[in-house]
Amino acid sequence: MNTLIVHAHPEPRSFCTALMSTAVEELRAQGHEVQVSDLYAMHFNPVASAADFQQRANPDYCVYALEQRHAFDTGTLASDIQAELDKLLWCDLLILNFPLYWCSTPAILKGWIDRVLVSGKVYGGKRFYNLGGLKGKRALVSLTLGGRESMFADNGVHGPLDDMLKHLLQGTLAYTGMDVLPPFVGWHIPYITPEARSACLASWRSRLQSLDELLTLDFPVLA
Amino acid sequence: MNTLIVHAHPEPRSFCTALMSTAVEELRAQGHEVQVSDLYAMHFNPVASAADFQQRANPDYCVYALEQRHAFDTGTLASDIQAELDKLLWCDLLILNFPLYWCSTPAILKGWIDRVLVSGKVYGGKRFYNLGGLKGKRALVSLTLGGRESMFADNGVHGPLDDMLKHLLQGTLAYTGMDVLPPFVGWHIPYITPEARSACLASWRSRLQSLDELLTLDFPVLA
Repeated sequence: MNTLIVHAHPEPRSFCTALMSTAVEELRAQGHEVQVSDLYAMHFNPVASAADFQQRANPDYCVYALEQRHAFDTGTLASDIQAELDKLLWCDLLILNFPLYWCSTPAILKGWIDRVLVSGKVYGGKRFYNLGGLKGKRALVSLTLGGRESMFADNGVHGPLDDMLKHLLQGTLAYTGMDVLPPFVGWHIPYITPEARSACLASWRSRLQSLDELLTLDFPVLA
Repeated sequence: MNTLIVHAHPEPRSFCTALMSTAVEELRAQGHEVQVSDLYAMHFNPVASAADFQQRANPDYCVYALEQRHAFDTGTLASDIQAELDKLLWCDLLILNFPLYWCSTPAILKGWIDRVLVSGKVYGGKRFYNLGGLKGKRALVSLTLGGRESMFADNGVHGPLDDMLKHLLQGTLAYTGMDVLPPFVGWHIPYITPEARSACLASWRSRLQSLDELLTLDFPVLA
């Protein structure tokens, strides 16, 4: 199994970064190939713009998705996008690993999504959900946050975390055709003991050992 | 009424940009003060990092929210963040105007949220939802997308748009204490006629004339 881990944390010594390192180690120990896109270390540019296309379909008016299609078809995507897209198409499992910022991904990871999930290949026309361009791949979100699990319970103050993440789990990952595994969540991370952090890492390792036993989340199916 | 419009579209001639210009014109005609943060035009940096703090609480290990608190308290936020925060604190109405990218904001706008909504002022400790630091202000999302309204109906393929936007409407805007108005949505924009676009702009103008009549969305209330 080929795995791409897209990691987005500004502090290399963070617990979130330890989740990433643990995943690399664990998956390689299982005999899998792993690539990591460490977006902060790469100084990844998250801003979708006309500069993402070496040759424009319409030089006068940029419709981003249409330019993505044209650039994908003609092999003229910006080289940093093409490199990430190649990794994405190579992988069987995509792991997005990040600290929850405002109930979503940090901007640098949102920009990876905006720029790399190109129309024309990943989706487009009527190809989305179970007809999406990444059908056959699996996606797994692993995240850390300050909040407590009880705050995101069914009757918690924020409601279920999966509902907060609907834009990502359904609107992004499932939309591209990937099978989406239940997120792995490191709760209340800044406030827990070193022992609790070790237990969380062990739980993460265990999760990575049992991916095939997990039921994927349910999302819309097109006829 | 002081209004801050945070606008994020890469194409200056886009319909989304016309929504922004129309809002400036309409609100000024009503006698209001308006400031615009045109994030693409400003080349706004969306990447939250240790470089956002001129003086670190902990130079060896960056916990972003803790550094935000320290930098806010000591007046040592990066100058681009401080300038945006000043506009945010000045405004009575915040409008986020953007094209929907992956059921959320473009990364450049997500980065404005990540960097400008600073812990210590905007939220922090037990100050969130109705106790949030931006209590008394209103927030309005205006967005354009390619999808049709029927796809986001209660029984539509994606489910209600407000559910997709829960991370933004509740998890971000309501979390800071702002009263959140119902989003204004330009549906199916790349595919509609010029007449339909004109009608959409007229509808937007009308919405901006009747903000005080709108019911705000319901979100959690803390005791």
